[in-house]
Amino acid sequence: MVCLPDKFIVTFFCLLCTLSNTIKLDDMAKEITSRNEDFSQWYNDLVIKAELAENSVVRGCMVIKPYGYSIWEKMQAALDKMFKDTGHSNAYFPLFIPKSFFSKEASHVEGFAKECAVVTHYRLKNDPNGKGVIVDPEAKLEEELIVRPTSETIIWNSYRNWIQSYRDLPILINQWANIVRWEMRTRLFLRTAEFLWQEGHTAHATSEEALEETLKMLDVYVEFAENWLAIPVIKGRKTESERFAGAIDTYTIEGLMQDGKALQCGTSHFLGQNFAKAFDVKFASKEGTLDYVWATSWGLTTRMVGALVMTHSDDNGLIIPPKLAPIQVIIVPIYKNDNEKSLVSEKAVQIRKMLEEKNISVKFDDRDTQKPGWKFAEYELKGVPVRIAIGPKDLANNTVEIARRDNLEKQLYPIDQVCTIVQELLTDIQSNMFNKALQFREENTIKVDNYEEFKRILEGKGGFISAHWDGTSETEEKIKEETKATIRCIPIDPVEDIGKCIYSGKQSKGRVIFAKAY
Amino acid sequence: MVCLPDKFIVTFFCLLCTLSNTIKLDDMAKEITSRNEDFSQWYNDLVIKAELAENSVVRGCMVIKPYGYSIWEKMQAALDKMFKDTGHSNAYFPLFIPKSFFSKEASHVEGFAKECAVVTHYRLKNDPNGKGVIVDPEAKLEEELIVRPTSETIIWNSYRNWIQSYRDLPILINQWANIVRWEMRTRLFLRTAEFLWQEGHTAHATSEEALEETLKMLDVYVEFAENWLAIPVIKGRKTESERFAGAIDTYTIEGLMQDGKALQCGTSHFLGQNFAKAFDVKFASKEGTLDYVWATSWGLTTRMVGALVMTHSDDNGLIIPPKLAPIQVIIVPIYKNDNEKSLVSEKAVQIRKMLEEKNISVKFDDRDTQKPGWKFAEYELKGVPVRIAIGPKDLANNTVEIARRDNLEKQLYPIDQVCTIVQELLTDIQSNMFNKALQFREENTIKVDNYEEFKRILEGKGGFISAHWDGTSETEEKIKEETKATIRCIPIDPVEDIGKCIYSGKQSKGRVIFAKAY
Repeated sequence: MVCLPDKFIVTFFCLLCTLSNTIKLDDMAKEITSRNEDFSQWYNDLVIKAELAENSVVRGCMVIKPYGYSIWEKMQAALDKMFKDTGHSNAYFPLFIPKSFFSKEASHVEGFAKECAVVTHYRLKNDPNGKGVIVDPEAKLEEELIVRPTSETIIWNSYRNWIQSYRDLPILINQWANIVRWEMRTRLFLRTAEFLWQEGHTAHATSEEALEETLKMLDVYVEFAENWLAIPVIKGRKTESERFAGAIDTYTIEGLMQDGKALQCGTSHFLGQNFAKAFDVKFASKEGTLDYVWATSWGLTTRMVGALVMTHSDDNGLIIPPKLAPIQVIIVPIYKNDNEKSLVSEKAVQIRKMLEEKNISVKFDDRDTQKPGWKFAEYELKGVPVRIAIGPKDLANNTVEIARRDNLEKQLYPIDQVCTIVQELLTDIQSNMFNKALQFREENTIKVDNYEEFKRILEGKGGFISAHWDGTSETEEKIKEETKATIRCIPIDPVEDIGKCIYSGKQSKGRVIFAKAY
Repeated sequence: MVCLPDKFIVTFFCLLCTLSNTIKLDDMAKEITSRNEDFSQWYNDLVIKAELAENSVVRGCMVIKPYGYSIWEKMQAALDKMFKDTGHSNAYFPLFIPKSFFSKEASHVEGFAKECAVVTHYRLKNDPNGKGVIVDPEAKLEEELIVRPTSETIIWNSYRNWIQSYRDLPILINQWANIVRWEMRTRLFLRTAEFLWQEGHTAHATSEEALEETLKMLDVYVEFAENWLAIPVIKGRKTESERFAGAIDTYTIEGLMQDGKALQCGTSHFLGQNFAKAFDVKFASKEGTLDYVWATSWGLTTRMVGALVMTHSDDNGLIIPPKLAPIQVIIVPIYKNDNEKSLVSEKAVQIRKMLEEKNISVKFDDRDTQKPGWKFAEYELKGVPVRIAIGPKDLANNTVEIARRDNLEKQLYPIDQVCTIVQELLTDIQSNMFNKALQFREENTIKVDNYEEFKRILEGKGGFISAHWDGTSETEEKIKEETKATIRCIPIDPVEDIGKCIYSGKQSKGRVIFAKAY
């Protein structure tokens, strides 16, 4: 055994820490793969380095870290307000669904009952053969319980008791919940075994009213995607093969990511009377007839955090739209000694206070442990929309340097204009991000009229392809097999544009949107 | 087959509806069992009739209905703000915990690994012998997953990778989540197999800091219980036998329900280094030593909705403290014809608008389908703090009738004072509810010095009993066996009061609080 004096060990250890820290900091930017090199790796690097989420020890389940969760919280607050403004209330239904419920709606079972977490027992016991615990074979459930992959069945089973007459309708309920679908290939936020979402479940007296609700909530999603996430979306109807299991019609909003792949951002389903029939939910109409109830459901998930990253961010890190940014403004002080620090800090605290009074979320990072350059890189990585740097020169000149994250421009401004400038910048960044994404989408949405070009584009830069399709599942399936592209949606209000299917040459009534998708 | 004209059927059906409706309405109040008759049944009736929650088809799992959920949402908002004001952030950890994790902390396994939902398979398949689906035997998990009964293990397993140095500390994280504990006897809100809660999990460099955090969060719970729920609580430390499995010390706040039974309202645990040791979480201190991290956890659940009901409500229905009431003011119009309705409604809408401008949540119930008397009973049942009734006479006299739910007093007020009066009333009802509950608790907290009286009180009206105890688990256990009373807590800052244990006659260092409990 080698004996070393305590002090030596301590010093050595501290040196190691400092060293590893230095390396970590300098390499931080470098550690993010560039988009050109490997988009998928870039995404993963970003989610990890910006501390949005990480994989957990449980296969396919992620840990959403505080920074990532605070973005989700902001999304929740915005959506929840929109739901309430459109007359919806929140409620909570059980996590577990009896296995037999999945067999009740014929197409639902095909879509959802397969890859799911099954609870078979309700007790563990000490292992009689040694350490640890084992499943108690005597505590077997009579009927297995499924961890909800979606809640139509358990909710419609409740609605049966809630609905007797037209006076009980409509029911406009939303639920914020965790969901489990045993996905084989998972990616942080985009596809995880457990994810968080909201699911709306509404009940109506007429088909028209239910369809109106379906489209109203689709529009809520459009507004949310475009005005909050700054993601332009195409709204449309899904083809039969892409429909929600149990729906008459599924409506979707589709965004285009920077790698030319589509991402489904939210769906709203017109369920007709399918679940009412499966769970025997009837109501006495005003006219005294006994009818099945009409239904909708609609959902949006934590996947949208991934959509945010893939739509806007760059090789330096995240770019978060101001409306969803946990920190909207970061203030970094520049100083060489304690005296400078104290003077600069005093001004910085004043600025923070002024901005906070305008309901802007501000962080003043006055840590001594990191240099300004490190902080600049850190908050670029974190996607903070506006950065204010303030040093002794600024105090002398009554200026501050303000940098915007979206286009990395920076400029000196008179200190007394900070409030106005920051407010304008936040608004401008939000709309600039949307416009930039819109321009990207427009540049990458191409009308194509022959299959060779169709394939060439998909093998190249990708994007949305607007093309004619003969309306059959066979053609759709063959195109998918040959190119991996799927029909993302049949646009709502399509332009009258009769043509020939790019694959079969048969008659087509209008163009649909193809793309490779997440 | 008997053929009847459509119109006859319609008329008959409507008649039936009306009839059943009438019966339902008249009997509504009667359907609630009185507290004196059967407190437990009264509670159940109230939760169901006021539409807070109901049992689901899944054993022990409840459906939280919109009205109940909106109370929980208000609780969440208040608590969440307090957590953030004290420096905590929200995050999200997996629902599933590998079975082996429960064996890592010796006492934790005893407390939590036993009655829990166990996921053993990840796929269903079509039953080859017929209809429906069966568990696919080929999709058996290598290691079973436990649906979280609390998240210390999965969280500390993550913290291991988050913490290297003292610079990474403290970690102050909270999680809003659903929890499953396979309880055998369940009651809506009070004890359910699945419930909602928040769980704070913090990591610290020193024992002192962790203990400070434990007590700080206990004080947050006290403030929440007393200032929001209007429930006076006793704060104290749990005895060893009532401690959280894995904690060094558990602190609790205890409320007294109207039936003289105690309800644990929230707990805050000082976990020492137990979980850090179990999951090998060490940090390099400022001094360069490598130490285990210190931990706390603290939780509060949907059970508090039940506490609210049992503390304040009466035989007419709920009484909800204004700060948590989904509807703070209900306006009921009184009219005999359309002309009156129109005049009254105009004024009612003005009043609603005025109150809403003061951030008061108001509902104007102008339904024609129900009479004012029915509405009065309905909103009494729902516990709406303030009711405004307005009719033609009021218009003539420039008055409104304002009734308060807590003491059922009503009075006429000049219409132009409505805003001021309502604001004053809401404040007054909040404090009056607290004071009433406090008075009840004081009347039902009794110092007892002999075991016969102790038993007599417990067999009678119950309440908190402050008595001497010798400090041993044996005595505690025997008293529990003989009387069903448990030590709710050892009050913090106890009065120096040396005496003799009521059971053993041995020396006692201070009084502890006994009660029968939920």
